[in-house]
Amino acid sequence: MLVDGVAHRTIWLADDGQSVEIIDQTQLPHEFAIVRLNTVDDTAHAIRTMQVRGAPLIGAAAAYGVALAMQADSGDEALADACTLLLTTRPTAVNLRWALDEMKSLLQPLAVDIRCEAAYRRAAEICEEDVGINEGIGGHGVDLIRSASEAKGGAPVEILTHCNAGWLATVDWGTATSPIYQAHDAGIPVHVWVDETRPRNQGASLTAWELGHHGVPHTVIVDNAAGHVMQRGKVDLCITGTDRTTATGDVCNKIGTYLKALAAHDNGIPFYIGLPSPTIDWTLADGIAEIPIEERDGTEVAEMTGWTSDGRVETVKITPEGSAVANFAFDVTPARLVTGLITERGIAPASREGLLELFPERR
Amino acid sequence: MLVDGVAHRTIWLADDGQSVEIIDQTQLPHEFAIVRLNTVDDTAHAIRTMQVRGAPLIGAAAAYGVALAMQADSGDEALADACTLLLTTRPTAVNLRWALDEMKSLLQPLAVDIRCEAAYRRAAEICEEDVGINEGIGGHGVDLIRSASEAKGGAPVEILTHCNAGWLATVDWGTATSPIYQAHDAGIPVHVWVDETRPRNQGASLTAWELGHHGVPHTVIVDNAAGHVMQRGKVDLCITGTDRTTATGDVCNKIGTYLKALAAHDNGIPFYIGLPSPTIDWTLADGIAEIPIEERDGTEVAEMTGWTSDGRVETVKITPEGSAVANFAFDVTPARLVTGLITERGIAPASREGLLELFPERR
Repeated sequence: MLVDGVAHRTIWLADDGQSVEIIDQTQLPHEFAIVRLNTVDDTAHAIRTMQVRGAPLIGAAAAYGVALAMQADSGDEALADACTLLLTTRPTAVNLRWALDEMKSLLQPLAVDIRCEAAYRRAAEICEEDVGINEGIGGHGVDLIRSASEAKGGAPVEILTHCNAGWLATVDWGTATSPIYQAHDAGIPVHVWVDETRPRNQGASLTAWELGHHGVPHTVIVDNAAGHVMQRGKVDLCITGTDRTTATGDVCNKIGTYLKALAAHDNGIPFYIGLPSPTIDWTLADGIAEIPIEERDGTEVAEMTGWTSDGRVETVKITPEGSAVANFAFDVTPARLVTGLITERGIAPASREGLLELFPERR
Repeated sequence: MLVDGVAHRTIWLADDGQSVEIIDQTQLPHEFAIVRLNTVDDTAHAIRTMQVRGAPLIGAAAAYGVALAMQADSGDEALADACTLLLTTRPTAVNLRWALDEMKSLLQPLAVDIRCEAAYRRAAEICEEDVGINEGIGGHGVDLIRSASEAKGGAPVEILTHCNAGWLATVDWGTATSPIYQAHDAGIPVHVWVDETRPRNQGASLTAWELGHHGVPHTVIVDNAAGHVMQRGKVDLCITGTDRTTATGDVCNKIGTYLKALAAHDNGIPFYIGLPSPTIDWTLADGIAEIPIEERDGTEVAEMTGWTSDGRVETVKITPEGSAVANFAFDVTPARLVTGLITERGIAPASREGLLELFPERR
């Protein structure tokens, strides 16, 4: 999507055709910095320090990390080492493991001298596949926004989103944001309420930044305010992303999603999920009982990082000494609160039957 | 309540019998600083800069501010000027206007030479009345906690609260926290989940601080996490405060309260309000339609203040340049989501009939 008027992706092959470039997301929204990755170690560092983040983007970066490793040494040991190194960077991301398995199973049977080229080609394909899935989500989701716009006589459609399921979390388009960008690009007026999304503030720092650069009108609110804006008729529909969705339509997503879904339900506002099909966990039937919730370090709650008025990055502590903190990273929104799952194949009701209609090969 | 093991109130007459001392709440939780107010100007400054905050405490401080004015000059003009000055400090707080009306109507008819003593006496009474109301709320609310404790076989009762309806917002005990302190003091084991309460973080900075100093076990969570802890069976009951409650039991309180009430309702968890009767607005019947919601300056959302690792107070910006922010200060929780209103006269269902049972003089 656009940054300062120029189309960007989150990851791309550099002009030399070998190294890989990324947007350093740890510097956003303060600074738009591009980082060049020359080695698999550079890539592991970028994932570990969250210069790249978001499950789809992590997968794409890991694939390119393997390609960079093959560039230096395409032997068996180098391939195994690269995959091991990259897998340890963010051990819980599903797409990371998937991308590495994909690269390994492709490359291992190949002759050593053709591995490098094959690795670059497959990494590029993985990026294109992600873009295609997200574009598909947008293509179906934009119909919802168009209908809402028509129902409002062309007044801006008010959309609430949570966290960053934006293009920064993917290679391009984003998942939750893809329908929004497609609506905006098609001239349908939209306005987005952006939840701050404590504790890591991905809404305030990433979603607001990317919407702003693409020219999409938006307003940042604290997470606490989402219920109020819905209660006062200021929201037409909600769209969030998902980190893992059960075969029955329970949605595990960034902490706080459940609260927004409750408010949408209480106010009769549709609540949609931008859902790339690789995020469906077909083995699970009960999100609350079966999905373990990651507890992250409490410093994310106790502290906040931002920019001082003179432009320094500074971290401040906001809880008292001696107070315990807990940091649950995700919550589960039961399928009963979800209006629909916007996948690359269409919009499904949040139910096993609904998903199987779109993915009959899973029957 | 206790600070470093010593019982404190939020406001008291200094040893000289004339000046007034307060806890500077802008320094919490980092520093426990006591400020001496010698004049009505000092008092106005303390209220305006939120060294004292919380509706009941603002009222008490304003009453003492009038006494300080009378100490310097107890003429008619000085009385009128003091009230005018104090009223402008926080124009929306109901208790502020009430306390000033109370002082003015008491003092104006009196001879000038007895106004000063009468003012100090009435200010002290206003403080005692607040303490009495809050102690009463605690006396009724503690029964709920005791019952929950018995039902759990003595395991700690898990209580979730939002914002600061603690002793720091009152003269002592607090409203929502009064049942908690009384349970703790009676040896009933409790553990409190403290919502951070963005944008001003009163939960993380004030409630956590006061619970910690009084020895009450607690854990700070981001506002987003409240639904998750309820969904996972980690909460037995919720208690919050209220800024204004309609005659029908709709509760206007700090932004985000509505979301927590929705989560409590969805999980069958009782949701109580610590409600001092002066906070009931008997003229209102529909909280959502009738209560205007204050919109505060967006910098509270765009910025966060805390302490750096080397102990400096620093403000950091967390939203991108150019992103709009909105800052709704309160929301309305409909009576249907409120299990009960814990008043100084007993616990009422959140309904007109329920409130009139306890306050028959309002029929």
